[in-house]
Amino acid sequence: MDIITINEYDINLGPLGGPMSRFLKSKAYSRLCIIADENTEALCLPRLEPLLEAYEWTTVVVPPGEQHKKLETCASIWKQMMDARIDRQSLLINLGGGVIGDMGGFCASTFKRGVDFVQVPTTLLSQVDASIGGKLGIDFAQVKNSIGLFCDPQAVFIDPAFLDTLPREELRSGFAEIIKHSLIADEEQWRTIRKIEALDAVDWPSLIGPSLSIKQDIVKEDPLEQGLRKALNFGHTIGHAIESFALNSAEPLLHGEAVAVGMVCEAFLSSRLLGLPAEDLETISHFLLRIYGHYPLEERHFDPLLQLMKNDKKNEGGKINFSLLPAPGSVKVNCTAEPSHIEDSLLYYKGLPGR
Amino acid sequence: MDIITINEYDINLGPLGGPMSRFLKSKAYSRLCIIADENTEALCLPRLEPLLEAYEWTTVVVPPGEQHKKLETCASIWKQMMDARIDRQSLLINLGGGVIGDMGGFCASTFKRGVDFVQVPTTLLSQVDASIGGKLGIDFAQVKNSIGLFCDPQAVFIDPAFLDTLPREELRSGFAEIIKHSLIADEEQWRTIRKIEALDAVDWPSLIGPSLSIKQDIVKEDPLEQGLRKALNFGHTIGHAIESFALNSAEPLLHGEAVAVGMVCEAFLSSRLLGLPAEDLETISHFLLRIYGHYPLEERHFDPLLQLMKNDKKNEGGKINFSLLPAPGSVKVNCTAEPSHIEDSLLYYKGLPGR
Repeated sequence: MDIITINEYDINLGPLGGPMSRFLKSKAYSRLCIIADENTEALCLPRLEPLLEAYEWTTVVVPPGEQHKKLETCASIWKQMMDARIDRQSLLINLGGGVIGDMGGFCASTFKRGVDFVQVPTTLLSQVDASIGGKLGIDFAQVKNSIGLFCDPQAVFIDPAFLDTLPREELRSGFAEIIKHSLIADEEQWRTIRKIEALDAVDWPSLIGPSLSIKQDIVKEDPLEQGLRKALNFGHTIGHAIESFALNSAEPLLHGEAVAVGMVCEAFLSSRLLGLPAEDLETISHFLLRIYGHYPLEERHFDPLLQLMKNDKKNEGGKINFSLLPAPGSVKVNCTAEPSHIEDSLLYYKGLPGR
Repeated sequence: MDIITINEYDINLGPLGGPMSRFLKSKAYSRLCIIADENTEALCLPRLEPLLEAYEWTTVVVPPGEQHKKLETCASIWKQMMDARIDRQSLLINLGGGVIGDMGGFCASTFKRGVDFVQVPTTLLSQVDASIGGKLGIDFAQVKNSIGLFCDPQAVFIDPAFLDTLPREELRSGFAEIIKHSLIADEEQWRTIRKIEALDAVDWPSLIGPSLSIKQDIVKEDPLEQGLRKALNFGHTIGHAIESFALNSAEPLLHGEAVAVGMVCEAFLSSRLLGLPAEDLETISHFLLRIYGHYPLEERHFDPLLQLMKNDKKNEGGKINFSLLPAPGSVKVNCTAEPSHIEDSLLYYKGLPGR
């Protein structure tokens, strides 16, 4: 059981029971409201319920999936919170993956101008990434996370036992952020990770701790993403565009699957613009294709993808903003790339050998 | 020209030109976006335009009125901001009354997780009340301001010249907050105000300064409404319910008109629960009826009004929360009243002689 304090809130890593009970006892909430999706209601809520016996609590359940991380779902959550008479002395518990954490946190921090919330991330992706750092929001007008705000939870509870409830592709999606953390900040860990041949043999809890630490160190330095925190965007400028694009296609991608494509393309940009050695580009690309396969990108997709990138929140003054790798284990923020370079990177990805 | 600094932002009282130009020059915004309604676009924007010549700017125009302060209008504003390529280096200028300030500020502070905004309030109500204090939001599920957050603007520009553009009932609505400020904090000002026989003779700029000061003093002490700031809620628990109720009736009320009804009812509660002298109750009631007339409240409205009060953000642990007057010029927060008392106060209002 580890406790790490970041900007006034604790991140508890380990079995949920003890720390959650202590947290609730230290506060005096009038009501609890659990936000879950249909999967976490069935698979994860039963582990939480015994801790809630002494409290008046209610659940708000939404359909699972990124396609429901939108304003209409927020309206439904807010309406159910209102019907359940949630007030400013209540606590929201977000039980689920990144969609539930981002959207539930956004709903909490805008309901009656702000209700306390805690994050209980149940996917690998949200355990190492989405639950840390106070970024909340929803997708809007086909642009990921374009409506939202920064607001810290009261606490985060990361229990690796929830990973047992996950399908394999969800674990693989979360793994992308672990890979990213190693690529931007920890060459040693990257050397270890790149040897992984198959996901079945991975001991996830042993990877979560170090990955969390990288993210926390960065977020502590720069909570509002004014500088250093942009390091975490490696793979995400192109990855977000791919994810938004795929969201409306017959073959939607999970976040990490899209970021894996983005990391290949942005590693290419890194080699072209920052001199990332060709050998490292090759190692990164081949490793990511081995784990994630080859997404069927086509040239007619390039224009809509560029349009999506132009609307990215990370841009400044109309330039598309990237965080790129001079070398594995280090990162340079505020790089810009011309549309022609970006197209080249998509072509590079397209031309890689499939599996 | 007065400048008052509150929690890191300036409130500029006086002609708009100089301070707005100095503010814009002190920053380096990539684009400006003016949020206006159809009225302020026609009547107020022409005064702002000369100051914007050196900038790339765009307007987002929404229909006027409280009935448009809702999620659907936010979606339209966000979409237009996105189409105009507003980014985190842009500035939003909210040009209008409380609806534009509250909703435009909410849209700004949630767009791409937060874009800077300034308030240029154009109504008396927003000049003395809504533009100060960082409360942002929209109405939802028939409950006023139930979705929103606290976020400070970069600056506020209060130019009494805009009051010339207002119809008489808008001035009268704003006057209610000036009356409230005197009743909760300045008995001297209340003695002056209560002598006002008709609105035509009032010198508004002379009332704005003192009224702003009362609000600022309170907000500075308690920005997140955890205690003292609740003083400003006098008249608003019942007033908000009346306003929400009237919003869906054939005869909607302006905010101040509803608060005037609320202040009469809550002065009655003050006399019943805190011993406000009968003579003061009578003076307050008669003055408010002289200025605002008699709203046709009916007994069949009482139940829906109580339901609306039970959903008020200000409640804690299921109790309906009031700020009441022990005497004119002083206020007690966190009072609660039983439904039967609240019904008596509505009956008292209903039984007052009409004009």
